[in-house]
Amino acid sequence: MSDQKKTTIVLFNGDYDKAMAAYIIANGAAAYDHEVTIFHTFWGLNTLRKDNKVSMKKRFINKMFGKMMPRGADKMGLSKMNYLGMGQKMIKNVIKKHNAMPLPQLIEMAQEQDVKLIGCTMTMDLLGLQKEELLDGIEYAGVAAYIGDAEEGNVNLFI
Amino acid sequence: MSDQKKTTIVLFNGDYDKAMAAYIIANGAAAYDHEVTIFHTFWGLNTLRKDNKVSMKKRFINKMFGKMMPRGADKMGLSKMNYLGMGQKMIKNVIKKHNAMPLPQLIEMAQEQDVKLIGCTMTMDLLGLQKEELLDGIEYAGVAAYIGDAEEGNVNLFI
Amino acid sequence: MSDQKKTTIVLFNGDYDKAMAAYIIANGAAAYDHEVTIFHTFWGLNTLRKDNKVSMKKRFINKMFGKMMPRGADKMGLSKMNYLGMGQKMIKNVIKKHNAMPLPQLIEMAQEQDVKLIGCTMTMDLLGLQKEELLDGIEYAGVAAYIGDAEEGNVNLFI
Repeated sequence: MSDQKKTTIVLFNGDYDKAMAAYIIANGAAAYDHEVTIFHTFWGLNTLRKDNKVSMKKRFINKMFGKMMPRGADKMGLSKMNYLGMGQKMIKNVIKKHNAMPLPQLIEMAQEQDVKLIGCTMTMDLLGLQKEELLDGIEYAGVAAYIGDAEEGNVNLFI
Repeated sequence: MSDQKKTTIVLFNGDYDKAMAAYIIANGAAAYDHEVTIFHTFWGLNTLRKDNKVSMKKRFINKMFGKMMPRGADKMGLSKMNYLGMGQKMIKNVIKKHNAMPLPQLIEMAQEQDVKLIGCTMTMDLLGLQKEELLDGIEYAGVAAYIGDAEEGNVNLFI
Repeated sequence: MSDQKKTTIVLFNGDYDKAMAAYIIANGAAAYDHEVTIFHTFWGLNTLRKDNKVSMKKRFINKMFGKMMPRGADKMGLSKMNYLGMGQKMIKNVIKKHNAMPLPQLIEMAQEQDVKLIGCTMTMDLLGLQKEELLDGIEYAGVAAYIGDAEEGNVNLFI
């Protein structure tokens, strides 16, 4: 076992603010030399979607999920005070005013810092998401890989 | 202290999808020989309710909570895109199509793998839930037992 | 490194019930001699707001956030079954009936037990919250301090 500290985050929720929190913690831990992994599962997978439509053949029900879910980090709503998107506009607005980083840049930064971004294959299957629809540079794994990582983790969070 | 790894999960939320995530992780950890405990508190207790009505004397306010909360795993809604139950039907539908396990079976599997399922006595009291209303084979404990378990845990999650 | 066990909680959500769960676990861990820290970030910061209005100069957008967010623990709604505040009244009612502790008292108890209550400076900035608006005895820090604490933690939760 190496001496490097480890942080693992399960990102389950598909809210802009919760994904921001996950990526801020991940980037912080990476800056402190942790080996960091974010497992994206269920609605958290939307964080990784490309923002353009990728056309492919799908079952009807999977098409419906695909249409109903936000296409990428920039389109996700807030967990609180969303008010049909107004809260989200406000947050993006204050992020800009305070020179803080919006979510898409936090994701880029994580990739530059070698944070491992993983898509959960089982829930991709359930929601009908395919690799072509997700960002490049993502890895794919299931619950076994998560347990293997987390049991060595110093900081394990479910967000 | 034994060498066996430990996973503890506090299941606070009463959503079908979050409970699925909790039980998938629990079953995964148990398959990797972890000693696993799920503490069901607040709305997470609904996961453990029997689906038939158990008649008993209760205060009026506890009766109201009892009526308003879903009776068992199979009746819980989604945390996102629930759309008055339609999203939940869609999820159950794709679970069947992909031969994945619906929540009630994930709970059964957890019990077969000796995952300890615990009902938080303090919140049972608050919500007026009684042992007769919950599944058989559940244990009952409070926050002290949780701290004792979690401080030895390798993976501790709040879901 | 001391032998004292450590618990850290990130309180992200601004719901009465989730904050109760966070403070019950924090108080439990402190009773078992853990060194406990709660990092309040995003909507979790509302838990720490004073319940009276503190007048100060703010940008328009920060004023709006300030008005829209609940002023203190006692004013927060439930994560489930809030029904325009009715669920919250019911919870407070049953808390009283069962001689359990309402949230403001749980916070007091935590302060008496030396649980470290921290406000996340970055999100205070984003939401336009200032130190004068938050309870006395709070400390202020960012993600670096959180990582430093959590990597030594036995129990780390995101609520």
